[in-house]
Order: sequence, then structure tokens, then C-alpha cells
Amino acid sequence: MNEEKILTEELNRVLEKIKLLDGGAMDKARERVDNLTKPQGSLGRMEDLAVRLAGIHGDFFPVSTRKRVVVMAADHGVTEEGISAYPAEVTAQMVANFTAGGAAINVLGRLGDVEVEVVDVGVKADLNLPGVKRARIKKGSDNFRRGPAMSRTEALQAVKIGLDCAFEAVGNGIGVLATGEMGIGNTTASSAVMAALTGYEISLVVGRGTGLDDAKLCHKQKIVEQSLALHKPDPADPIGVLSKVGGLEIAALTGLILGGAARRVPVVVDGFISSTAALAAVKLCPAVHHYLVPSHLSAESGHALLMDYLALQPYIHMDMRLGEGTGAVLAMHLLEAAARITIEMATFEDARVSNSQGKSADADLKGAR
Amino acid sequence: MNEEKILTEELNRVLEKIKLLDGGAMDKARERVDNLTKPQGSLGRMEDLAVRLAGIHGDFFPVSTRKRVVVMAADHGVTEEGISAYPAEVTAQMVANFTAGGAAINVLGRLGDVEVEVVDVGVKADLNLPGVKRARIKKGSDNFRRGPAMSRTEALQAVKIGLDCAFEAVGNGIGVLATGEMGIGNTTASSAVMAALTGYEISLVVGRGTGLDDAKLCHKQKIVEQSLALHKPDPADPIGVLSKVGGLEIAALTGLILGGAARRVPVVVDGFISSTAALAAVKLCPAVHHYLVPSHLSAESGHALLMDYLALQPYIHMDMRLGEGTGAVLAMHLLEAAARITIEMATFEDARVSNSQGKSADADLKGAR
Repeated sequence: MNEEKILTEELNRVLEKIKLLDGGAMDKARERVDNLTKPQGSLGRMEDLAVRLAGIHGDFFPVSTRKRVVVMAADHGVTEEGISAYPAEVTAQMVANFTAGGAAINVLGRLGDVEVEVVDVGVKADLNLPGVKRARIKKGSDNFRRGPAMSRTEALQAVKIGLDCAFEAVGNGIGVLATGEMGIGNTTASSAVMAALTGYEISLVVGRGTGLDDAKLCHKQKIVEQSLALHKPDPADPIGVLSKVGGLEIAALTGLILGGAARRVPVVVDGFISSTAALAAVKLCPAVHHYLVPSHLSAESGHALLMDYLALQPYIHMDMRLGEGTGAVLAMHLLEAAARITIEMATFEDARVSNSQGKSADADLKGAR
Repeated sequence: MNEEKILTEELNRVLEKIKLLDGGAMDKARERVDNLTKPQGSLGRMEDLAVRLAGIHGDFFPVSTRKRVVVMAADHGVTEEGISAYPAEVTAQMVANFTAGGAAINVLGRLGDVEVEVVDVGVKADLNLPGVKRARIKKGSDNFRRGPAMSRTEALQAVKIGLDCAFEAVGNGIGVLATGEMGIGNTTASSAVMAALTGYEISLVVGRGTGLDDAKLCHKQKIVEQSLALHKPDPADPIGVLSKVGGLEIAALTGLILGGAARRVPVVVDGFISSTAALAAVKLCPAVHHYLVPSHLSAESGHALLMDYLALQPYIHMDMRLGEGTGAVLAMHLLEAAARITIEMATFEDARVSNSQGKSADADLKGAR
């Protein structure tokens, strides 16, 4: 049996493990949330998140759960076409910055008590940095303007890296995962993947990335257009799309998301690139959707459209567009809040019991309902 | 000299102390933020917040600053008109819940390391609860459908309570304040204050509060309409507006915001009621605006309009409408993130120095700019 077939079968076994949420746990959580000392529904989407977290976990979601953002790093051959404001070498330099603790994701990770795991799935330079997980499949994807970004086997290998990262994390006690990435050129690959999988017009899905001017934006659109015309990727085959016009880190994030869902942990999805990986994951297995927690609305122009497509409503609106997992890590605070509200707030019954005035808070607090 | 005159002069002295931001500190912060290892502007509005925090503080905003939410509690005579889904007694019951640590604001305060101070500025019931600051001006405001909610002197007394809370907090090392409130009936008072100060149509500023049905919503609109017709409050006199159709906790929050600005600390503004207090504060002294940090967009219908009016863009979109300061406390995490990013992220120069590969990260990372 060849490697492609083995990896495909392994992936399919994971997909089969991704189940619907636990309805009983959700009912129990909804009942509790509805009985907390506040007007019903007044915590809005935080209540919905709390209920869904219970459905994912199979019980009230525990507080102070260990959290990890997995930052997948890779280079992109398509940078040869001049589609990024930054030279490709910056990928490796930023990975070094991650290991030194000086990047935005490090700062936000420390603030939010979120572990930062950096994985080299395909950085061009030989990194050899302590603190970087070495899982390089090849020295960056190939230039998909001229040929496939990677072989189907390589795409499956990248997905497997992500699956393994998720399994390892959950096996070691991580209860929440977040997606992060670093890869100069990866908004181009993400735009191509999004266009291929959604059928949206290229002008709607291609944005300025790290900061292109109008002329370069037009050029980037043309490169995506030509690449899709060259490969004609089949929207019903997400692995094929990833291999033809994706990136190694995007494929790895697809695996991470699938792996998290298979192990029943919520996966907080960062910005545009991460959301493209989520799109591929949902196309591979629609039930994955239940395990996705949105984070922020990116300033990258295709992100709002992609969030709509995925029926995810971002919680944080700060016009960020950095990637690395920065928005996802910020949103983990909201997830923790939802978990704590469920468990730590007094119910109407508790409040009656503990009411130092000796009055029944129950009747009045519930009065409106 | 009578009390009203003394309090007015005291307030005016505070207003005179509210200065524009420190331009030098903002330039210095902007320069640093622009030199951090990320594409310029890629942290979006978090960068703007970081710069403004420096302008408020007069230097880089310190990390791990002590934070406090001040929850002003009061009752509203206008509840006699049947404008709330909850009976007025719930105000006191919820204050008891705050002291027991079982309310949403307690849970979120513990999560975000934010101190919760509860102040009785006018709860109808005699509370006598340990942990509640006793500053009751009277046993709830009067029914403003029939007469003024309070005298001008009482409104000024309530403002002074807020000023004193801010001064006491900052004097004791608090570096960030947030506004919170509890008061059955206070969306009605807030709607009336907003309509009076902005001139917006009543139908646009009156919402469902804790959960009114259509018929009760119409009734609430009518009560606000009749009250404004009765008092004809002068929009150029915010204290007059607060005394005629406001509430004791709204006036106290106005004072808290003014006091925070006078002491040069950022004040994170919660939802609809808090934003109405911010509106009154800005009308008293436009420079206050620089010290306001938005938090969440409330589901209460007038809030989006009020945020637009105040030129504030909320960061968190969760459709919350609980009050207590819950949205503001969540947003303090974003404020802390902005402070930490400024100080803890590596600059391009740092990254070059610390680059373990011995390469200059500087040239390439800055290359695009």
C-alpha cells in the first residue's frame, strides 16, 4: 500500500471519530445558564458559547483548562511571483523571534496563560532552533503559479502533522486549542484555497495581506486567477485543493482542527489563514463546525466573507491582521469567561440560600420569566 | 454659600483639571509600536489603544496595573410606572449577590484580576451589607414621570460620590477604572438622559432593557416621552438633565468618569447605562473623551447609536446586555494586552540583537516599509 493511501485511510478514520455534540450536556448547561442570577439571555452569545462548550466537552466545561496555540510555520514558493510586501526570509526570522519570546503571540500567550507551540512544517531555511518542533515536510511549498504547491501525499503528510499535534496536546492535558501560523505569502495561498472551495469571485477573496498597494493587489489577484485556471481544483476534494494551491501550514492547521474535533476539544480559529484551514476542515467533515470557536474579525478583506460562509460570528473587532494566532489567543479569555460564568455564578436558588438578608431572592429575581 | 453652589464649584475645579493627552508620550509610543516585530498597523486598533494609553498615562502604560470596576447601585422611582420586567426589589437582592461573590461581575472580576467595588448611592432598601460602600443620597430617585428624579443638589452629591470613588481609587494605586451599575429601571432613565442630551428620537433610544415585550416597550417609550415633555430638560445643562430624568447611579458614574479623567487614568465604559453617564461627562467636559475606552456593543438597542454619537467603537461583540460592568471588565483584558504589546514585544532592533542565527532580522523585517 503506498503512502498516500495509508495517510488517506488514517485521515478517514479520524473523520469518522468526529461526532455531533453531546445534547444532554448542552441541555444541562442551558438549564444552569438560564438559572444563573441575571436576566435570561442577558449574557448574549457568551451563554451560547457556554452551552456549546459543554456540548463539546460532554459536561460543564472545566475552568482554568490548559490552553495551547499551535503556530504552524512554512514558506511559499509563490512568493517568487512578488505577491507579498515582505521577502520570504522573514518567515524564518519570525520563527526565531517566536523562540526568543519577542513576538506578539508570545506576549499575548503569556498574558492569557496560553502555551505557544511553534512547528516547522516547511520553512525554507534550516532552522535548528531550540523550542521549534521539527516536522518539515519540504523546504517550502512550490510555486503554484507554475505547478502544484505540493503533492497529494505531502498535503496529507502536513495534515497528519496537525492531527498529531492535536492528539499530543490533548493527550498531555490541553483542553483548548487555538490555530496560529507564520508564512510569508500565505494570504495568497489562503485566497486561492478559499476561492477554490467556495466558488467566490477572486476579487472578493484577495486582500492586501501584510500591506500591498493597489498595483500589487491587482497583481496578486492575477496570480491567484492564473493559478486557479492552471489547476482547476475540484471543490469537492479539499485535500486536492490544499495540495494544488494551498500551503504546508494551512494543511497542517486543517489537521490540527480535525484532530481537536476528533478529541472533543474546542478549537479557537484565528484570522484569515486559519479560517481557510477551518473551511477545508469543514469541507472534509461538516461536523467539525460545532468545535470551532470564532475569535476576531480580521482586517484582511476576505475574512468577513469567509466568516459568513462558515456561519461564525467573530467576538473581537479590533481590525487586527497579524496572524500568528494573536486574535485566537485573545478570544481564549472570552472562552474562559464563558466556562467560569457557567460554574461560578450563583443560581437563583444559591442566591436565596446565601442571601444574608434572609429574604428569598428567588421569587423576585425570577419574576420576569 | 449653599451646598449646590459649593458642589458646583468643586465640580468645576475638577473639570478644569481634565487636560488633553500627552502628545510627546503618544509620539514616543507610536514610534515604538511602529518598530515592533510585525507589519506596521497589523495590530489594528490595539495599536491605537496602546498609543492612547501612553497619552493618558504620560509614558508607556505600565503592565499589570491594578484595575477596579466601580458598581454604582440605586433604585428608580420611575419603576412605579411599570417600565421594567423586574420588580424594584431586585436591585437590593443583586447587591447582596455582589457581596456574596455570586454575580457575573464577581466571576469576571476574579478572572480578569479586577477589583469590584460596590457603592450604594441610592438603593431603596436599607442594605447594611459588609463590602458595600455606604454613600446613599436617598432611598432611590423619585418618579420622574411626575416630578424631577432628584434635586440639583442631590445630582451634584451623586456626581461627587463618583469623583471621590475615582480619587480614592487612584490614590490607592488603581491605574484603570471601569464603570458598572445595578438599578432596576435604569435603562429607562438612561434613555431619557440620552434623548435629552442628543436630541435623538425617543423610539431610537428606548430598548427592551432586561426583557420587555412589544406592548411594554411601547409603554416605556410613552413614559420617556411624557417625562421629557414634563421637564423639558436643557441639553446644554447635563447636571440639570441628570437631576430631572436621570438616576443616582448614572450621576455617580458621570462623576467616576470625570474623576478618572482628572486623575489621568483610562476609564473603560460598559454598556448602555454607563455610556449614558459617559455622554453626560463628555457634555460637561469634551476632553473627557480621550480618557474613555470602549468595551462591548450592548444588545440594548440605543447603545450602537450612542457609541456612534460618542465616536467610540466597541471591541467586543457578544450581544450582552447585563450591565454590572461585565463588558467593561472583559475589555480590560484587551487594554492589558495593548499595554503589554507596547512594552514586551521585541522591536526590529531587539530581534537583530537576539537573533540566534546571527542574521540581521532588521533589514528584512522592516523591508516592506
